[in-house]
Parts: sequence; C-alpha cells; structure tokens
Amino acid sequence: MKVGTKSYRSIWMNGTSVMMIEQNKLPFNFSIHECKTVNDTCNAIKDMTIRGAGSIGAAAAYAMLQTILTINDKNILYKELETAKTKIDSTRPTAVNLSYATSRVLSASKISKDYAIKEAQAVVDECAEQGRLIGIHGNKLIQDNYTIETHCNAGWLALVDYGSALAPIYEAHLSGKKIHVLVDETAPRSQGAKLTAWELAQQGIKHTIIPDNAGAHYMSQKKIDLIIVGADRIAANGDTANKIGTLEKAIAAKYYNIPFYVAAPTPTIDPTKKTGTEIPIEQRDEKEVLYSVGIDKNNRRQTILTANPNSTAYNPAFDVTPASLITGIITEKGIIKADKASIIKVLKDNN
Amino acid sequence: MKVGTKSYRSIWMNGTSVMMIEQNKLPFNFSIHECKTVNDTCNAIKDMTIRGAGSIGAAAAYAMLQTILTINDKNILYKELETAKTKIDSTRPTAVNLSYATSRVLSASKISKDYAIKEAQAVVDECAEQGRLIGIHGNKLIQDNYTIETHCNAGWLALVDYGSALAPIYEAHLSGKKIHVLVDETAPRSQGAKLTAWELAQQGIKHTIIPDNAGAHYMSQKKIDLIIVGADRIAANGDTANKIGTLEKAIAAKYYNIPFYVAAPTPTIDPTKKTGTEIPIEQRDEKEVLYSVGIDKNNRRQTILTANPNSTAYNPAFDVTPASLITGIITEKGIIKADKASIIKVLKDNN
Repeated sequence: MKVGTKSYRSIWMNGTSVMMIEQNKLPFNFSIHECKTVNDTCNAIKDMTIRGAGSIGAAAAYAMLQTILTINDKNILYKELETAKTKIDSTRPTAVNLSYATSRVLSASKISKDYAIKEAQAVVDECAEQGRLIGIHGNKLIQDNYTIETHCNAGWLALVDYGSALAPIYEAHLSGKKIHVLVDETAPRSQGAKLTAWELAQQGIKHTIIPDNAGAHYMSQKKIDLIIVGADRIAANGDTANKIGTLEKAIAAKYYNIPFYVAAPTPTIDPTKKTGTEIPIEQRDEKEVLYSVGIDKNNRRQTILTANPNSTAYNPAFDVTPASLITGIITEKGIIKADKASIIKVLKDNN
Repeated sequence: MKVGTKSYRSIWMNGTSVMMIEQNKLPFNFSIHECKTVNDTCNAIKDMTIRGAGSIGAAAAYAMLQTILTINDKNILYKELETAKTKIDSTRPTAVNLSYATSRVLSASKISKDYAIKEAQAVVDECAEQGRLIGIHGNKLIQDNYTIETHCNAGWLALVDYGSALAPIYEAHLSGKKIHVLVDETAPRSQGAKLTAWELAQQGIKHTIIPDNAGAHYMSQKKIDLIIVGADRIAANGDTANKIGTLEKAIAAKYYNIPFYVAAPTPTIDPTKKTGTEIPIEQRDEKEVLYSVGIDKNNRRQTILTANPNSTAYNPAFDVTPASLITGIITEKGIIKADKASIIKVLKDNN
C-alpha cells in the first residue's frame, strides 16, 4: 500500500536480511528495520517491531528462509529448520500464523532446499493476495454513507498488504463509496489511534478516533452501521481470538443488533482447537498498561507513567469472542458463517 | 478519608475561599487548590480540578456561599444568587448535582442570608453522610473473597467523603472482608488508573488496574463477582448517565449474568428527566483522547501525543445505561430497583 507516493509491504527480504516497517515508531516516524539474523527477526516479533497475525506469519516464514540461506549442508537442513521452528513459534503464543508458516516451510524442506525457499515466499505472497480478496468480498457488506467501527489494527501493516478488517474499507473507498471509519483507540499500545488512523490517513479515508469506552455509546445512538475486526486465531467452531476488547464490542453489537464481522485469511483458522477456550491468551508486561508512549511538543519520543505509582496491572493481549456473537467471517474465499460446518467446508475448498 | 495520616474531604471552605484537592495533579502530586472567587470555583469545575458528581455539587454549593459572603445588601442577594446560579449550572452539563445544589441555596436565600449559608454547608455535609450510608448498605452485597470491578472514580474524591461506588468497598474492607478490586483504567483521562487506584492504595486495599478493553474478558472467565459504578444523573425511570464506558460494562455484565449496581446518593436522581435520552451528554475536547498526561522518569509532568498526528477524535464524557441493565441502585436510604416506582418511593421517603 502507499506511504506517500511509494508502495510498501509491511515486510520483505533484502539478500539474507528481513526488512520490515518499524511499527513501534509509527505513526511518529516511518522507518525500516533490518533483521540480519534469525535471532533479530525473532526479537522483532517479540517486541512487536512487526505485529499483526499475517505479518508475524510472514516474519516467521522469512525467519525460516534466513535459516535456509545460512545452511549449505543439505543433510542438516531439516534438523536446523526444526530447531528454528521451535524458536520462532515460541515468540508469541496466540496467533496461529507463526506455526502455520513454519510448518509449511519445514514440510517443503523435505522435498528440496529450493522448494522450501519458494514455499517461504509463497506464504508471504499468499497473505497479501488473501488480503486483496478479503477486500473484494467484504466490500459487498458496505453501503454508501456507512459508518464502520474497527478495533485495533488489522490493516496492511498487520497482514503484509491490504489487510483483513481494513481491506474491505480500502476497496469500498476505491470503488467510490463515501464511508466514515470510527477507529477504536485500542489501549494498551493504542494500535487503533496510532496504526489504523495512520493507515487510513495515508489513503485519504475519513476517520475519527474514539475511546475504547465509547463503542457501545455510538451503537446505542444508531451511529454505527457495521463493525469489522481482524483475528489472531479462529477455532474450529468459529470462536475467535483477537485483540483485547473485541469481545466487548461483539457483545454490544449483539445487544444493538449491529452486524459484527471478523475478517481473516483462512490460515488464521486452527482446526486443531475445537473451541476458543483452547486458544492460549498471551499475557504481556503490565508496563504497557501503566505507561503511555508518544511524542512531546518537541517531537521527542517519551514514555510516561499514566497510572498511580506502585499500583499493578493485568495485561491480557487478546480475548475470545464466541462464534454466536459473530455475524460472519470474511475470508479470501468468500464470506462464511462462524460455525463448524462452514469452517470445515472453507478449509476443504480449493478455489 | 485518610491521605497518609491526615483526614481530608475533597473540598472545604477557608474564610471566603473554596479549598479543594487538585485532582488534575493526582496521583503524582497531592496539593490543595484555592479558589478565591466564584469565577475561580467555576473554572475549577470546568477544568476538572474538582470532579465527580457529588464533589462538583459541593463546589456549586460553596460557589453560592462565596457569592453570599460578598454581598452585604440583602435586597440584591436573591438576584445576585440567581445570576451566580446560571453561571455555576453551565460549567458542566451532565451531572444534575450542580443545579440541585444551587437551587437549594437559592431557595434558602428567600428565608434569610444565614439560612442560605447553612443550606450551602448542609448540601456538602449531606453528600458526605450519604456516602457513609451508601457504604453501609452496599457492603451487604459484598461477600468475603469477592473480586469487584469498578469504572472511573466514584470514590471520596468524587463525593466529598467516602464515595459512592467505592464506599461499599471501603466499608467491606473495614469490616474485615478480603476483597480484590479490578480498576478500569477509564480512558480518556484515566481516572480509574489515576484516582481510584490512588484512593485504594491510600486505604491499603488490594487492587489491580485493567485496560478498559479487558472487562468482558474477565467476566467471561468468571473472575468478577460484582460490578459497582457511580452515576452523574439518574432519570425518573432508572436510566443512568455515568462516565463513558459504563454502558459497555453493563451490557457485558448482563450477558454474563454478573450483578451490576449503580451507587449514588438520591440527589443524583433527576425526576424531571423521564428517561436517559433526555440527559444531556457533555462532549469534551478531543485533545483528552489524542494526548496522554503523566510523569516521565524524572518525575516531570508531560503531555504527549499518543495518536496519529492530524487525526481527529470524538470525546463524549458520559453514556447512558438503560435501567434494564442495572441490578439495583445503592442509595443512602437503601438498595432500590432501577425502576420508576422504586425511584418515586425513595424520593418521597424521609428517613
């Protein structure tokens, strides 16, 4: 997608280095972060230099590719990749995209080194293409003059290109529909106010940031036509793990009868998890809740304490929205119901 | 309530000055703000140096008292108080306590100047006493080992003394019950993380700050036994205006069958508003959403931008929770149902 006049993906290879947009510095600084080693790439996933289900899946694929490129002895390739996979998969627990990507590259390495290299790139290219298709399918839900609420950042920064929740919004905008996006701030880390607002501003889409507390208020006033969120992992029954706060929006949307859609490429589905209760929820450092990061009036980056000193905090990064609250899932293969039968069918479907 | 070893109210008189705890500087600095004139007191209400329904009602009563103390000619007293009332009532639109307090003092001035002075002090003293009684009634809802969620700050800072939502928590703690309070951060302005956490820490009560986004997550995990919030205005049918985000918690609580109580002294009830839709909702400056206020590592106060530069924000300060989502209202006269009949009865009740 465009940043100024140039097109970018959230992540790409340059020789043996993984290059990525430094998401921790956005929206105040646009810069590129280089990961020279697999370790660097793993650290970039952990500290959220790169984030979002699709983008960390891509980072995992490229970390496997980095491993391949450092190995000349094909007899140790599989074993080394297995070790790398364990390390990469453990960087963050909730999104299934990490193990999805590393498993594909590992399997491909059984055939040949070249095939594994191609497979790593394919994982990334497919994610971008899936975003494009999600945009086309999701756009059908959007009518002219719609106000759409979204939570966190499920745009191109989070999914290599296009995005999941934001892809239909980009497509609607390109197709000439007048839309207004209400962007949940999405504390802690404020990826809505920081990343989604930045993405939408780059594309010239009308948007307004709202406090996480204000979603139900605008729903009660009939000011929201549609809600679209992303997903970090979808269980076999349609239960969906996504950024903390998604569950509250889904419950409020049900209460006010507002369509609530999850947008996600099919690799986000984990058929090994029967229900959402089996999805592990990452607990992150309490500092993310107690401190805020931004810039002061001299454009200097500052981290400030915004809570009572010595009070503690909980920081669950995700929650699980039950399938019964989800109107539908927008995938690259079309919009499906959030139930077991539809999920089995979409996973079998090869078009 | 205690701050260190000393006892304070949130507001008091010193000669003709209104003295108040400077709430914008808490929790990082505990300081006293002096309002020498009615204008000063009005500005302190507007800029939230003093905040919370009961405390701004008290500030309004004292601003009327300041007016009385500057007038020697009893023939112009009523007219001057009428002018002051208009000015004071317009400082903030949502809480009914402002006009409740100014109306009482104005009416009293028809009898005598002395009576009006006593009436102003009575408004403040009654608010404190109502908090104490709310604590005693609300404590009956709290069992040993309860985890209680609260939103925003409805403690003694907000209600002169004791508080509304926090009063039962203080009483439970004093009576020896083991409790744990989950404190919603309550963005923007973070009065939960800043003021409620500070209040609870001063009284030695176990508490943990959670992101506003995390309430439903903990409800879904059955980790919350009871929710108590305050109120800025209660309509005749029980619909309740309170800090933005209260509505989302109430909807989630209903979904998970968790008792959801509003704690408020009866002057918070405005029988002239038939339903919550008639309550005006204050829209505050978007800067409160786009910027965060805290301290840096050198303990210097900083205001930083935490959103995409040039993006705009909405900032509704309150929302309205429908009576159907409220389990009960904890008043100084006992716990009542959130319905018209119970509200009429409690307003008529003179004990």
